[in-house]
Amino acid sequence: MLSRPLILASTSAIRLQLLQAAGLAVTAHASRIDEEAVKAGLESENANPRDIADALAEMKTAKVAARQPEALVLGCDQVLDFKGSVLSKPASLAEARAQLLALRGQTHALLSAAVLYDEGQPIWRHVGQARLTMRGFSDSYLDSYLARNWPEVGSSVGAYKLETEGVRLFDRIDGDYFTILGLPLLPLLSYLSTRGFIPS
Amino acid sequence: MLSRPLILASTSAIRLQLLQAAGLAVTAHASRIDEEAVKAGLESENANPRDIADALAEMKTAKVAARQPEALVLGCDQVLDFKGSVLSKPASLAEARAQLLALRGQTHALLSAAVLYDEGQPIWRHVGQARLTMRGFSDSYLDSYLARNWPEVGSSVGAYKLETEGVRLFDRIDGDYFTILGLPLLPLLSYLSTRGFIPS
Repeated sequence: MLSRPLILASTSAIRLQLLQAAGLAVTAHASRIDEEAVKAGLESENANPRDIADALAEMKTAKVAARQPEALVLGCDQVLDFKGSVLSKPASLAEARAQLLALRGQTHALLSAAVLYDEGQPIWRHVGQARLTMRGFSDSYLDSYLARNWPEVGSSVGAYKLETEGVRLFDRIDGDYFTILGLPLLPLLSYLSTRGFIPS
Repeated sequence: MLSRPLILASTSAIRLQLLQAAGLAVTAHASRIDEEAVKAGLESENANPRDIADALAEMKTAKVAARQPEALVLGCDQVLDFKGSVLSKPASLAEARAQLLALRGQTHALLSAAVLYDEGQPIWRHVGQARLTMRGFSDSYLDSYLARNWPEVGSSVGAYKLETEGVRLFDRIDGDYFTILGLPLLPLLSYLSTRGFIPS
């Protein structure tokens, strides 16, 4: 259906699955960027969370696009924005607990950035936002949640996965599902069809 | 984790999966309501889509609750509200095409109703709403979409599944994912924890 080969500059299983489910023929190539190092560097320069997400998506895309100049290359990144700061993946149980205590009763945002390259040049970019509000869960619920879900949630910033018990931490979720999963799919599809890369 | 057995008055695989993913112990019992007949009856009395969704959820719940008076029973229903009318599942390819032509370039709502019974009496109810806007796709795209997706989409009102190519019909989706899948999960979890059925 795509008029050009599409490469996802990531080995994220869920992003690949979303693109394939939408009917796009896509292959995945790892970009092998040291994300945490880049993120730390950008934060030390006071970059805002939106710019960090966009810069990380851009770096992944550019790196793969340089190796595959004939293809459309899509790179994505998601960051958790809590009051203007970016949260990292919790490295320990204590850090996971501290993140959840900070987020409890508060609203944070998930920012999902996507960048598209064609012939080695950027042609489109987008940052989608979802807003999530945690409920005021009790300390005892938090401890039992961590007993059941650590270390699995160590791979997620904010120490939760919405597709498992993590949903029970929340009062409210605003924003589309694709953005929450880390790929602003609707704006991407809209761009691809407007530009004639897929039938409109 | 639940203080009482929870029964889902439905054999919907996705609703069962959402409840189990959230960590709730739940079993499913079919309610065996003739939904299309009930829907047609309510429509002939000019019931609005919100009341139809609530009434269908209530009927399923009440029927199972009468057989299981000691349990918490949850019943759900989802209707597609297009300009105040409820759409049914398309019975033929021609009907699927007509539904998509009507929805093209327009906004419709998915209403997800849930009703909870305890000891044979209703104790909680909620109708969640998501709003979806279809893009102005071409007739030729529509025909190729149906060639690829009929008859699979015949089981869906509106002739689309968002988890497959159906997402390409849309410009915009507002509302949480759980409501779109047919279960207003966050309000349900909030009620269960407020009432002490699950730890808060």
